[in-house]
Amino acid sequence: MKAMILFGHGARDSRWREPFDRLAQLWQAQHPNTPVELAFLEMMQPSLEEAVSALSAKGATQITVVPVFFGQGGHLRNDFPVLLEACQKQYPNITLSATPAVGEDLAVLQAIVDFGARTL
Amino acid sequence: MKAMILFGHGARDSRWREPFDRLAQLWQAQHPNTPVELAFLEMMQPSLEEAVSALSAKGATQITVVPVFFGQGGHLRNDFPVLLEACQKQYPNITLSATPAVGEDLAVLQAIVDFGARTL
Repeated sequence: MKAMILFGHGARDSRWREPFDRLAQLWQAQHPNTPVELAFLEMMQPSLEEAVSALSAKGATQITVVPVFFGQGGHLRNDFPVLLEACQKQYPNITLSATPAVGEDLAVLQAIVDFGARTL
Repeated sequence: MKAMILFGHGARDSRWREPFDRLAQLWQAQHPNTPVELAFLEMMQPSLEEAVSALSAKGATQITVVPVFFGQGGHLRNDFPVLLEACQKQYPNITLSATPAVGEDLAVLQAIVDFGARTL
């Protein structure tokens, strides 16, 4: 079974996660057969490993991790691959893969441009 | 004249800003009469004040600042309003306003869901 992890940075303020909760709800409503979990790099729970564990318990065999970041800096280029590899070693029966950051996607950028245009 | 500032967090790795540069290019191509500048909270230039200064020099009288952040945590709830107010005091002849973070916009979230769905 395929599953999805939406991976964000995390922040001290718990309200920071609200758009991530909405993202997961949108995903689940539109893709009811593909379980989704949030995961955070730091300052918020669950961790990537906890999210993989939760999806494994639901029977996931292929998990795609989508980094919900704009830019690809040190967190995504250095920290994230290490985390992902550690999770892969811990769950050898699951195929873990990762997409580029969502900020690499032209449609995401266009949605931001359109948001800005509506506010003018 | 109206103008736009796309305001991001900033990062140590200069490659982090690539999606922001693309955003500004998209904006300018689609809205050639509304000048745009990037601005960053930390670790990257220009600052918000520098971006306001640059747009002021181009004749901007109304500037909308779009926070290109997913969540609204301490940076947007605490640091950003202070910065914005300081800029407003420094440029009293410009009307500065700010939108919610782009992560509050349903169409932006939907674009992220669609990006994830295309990778499955």
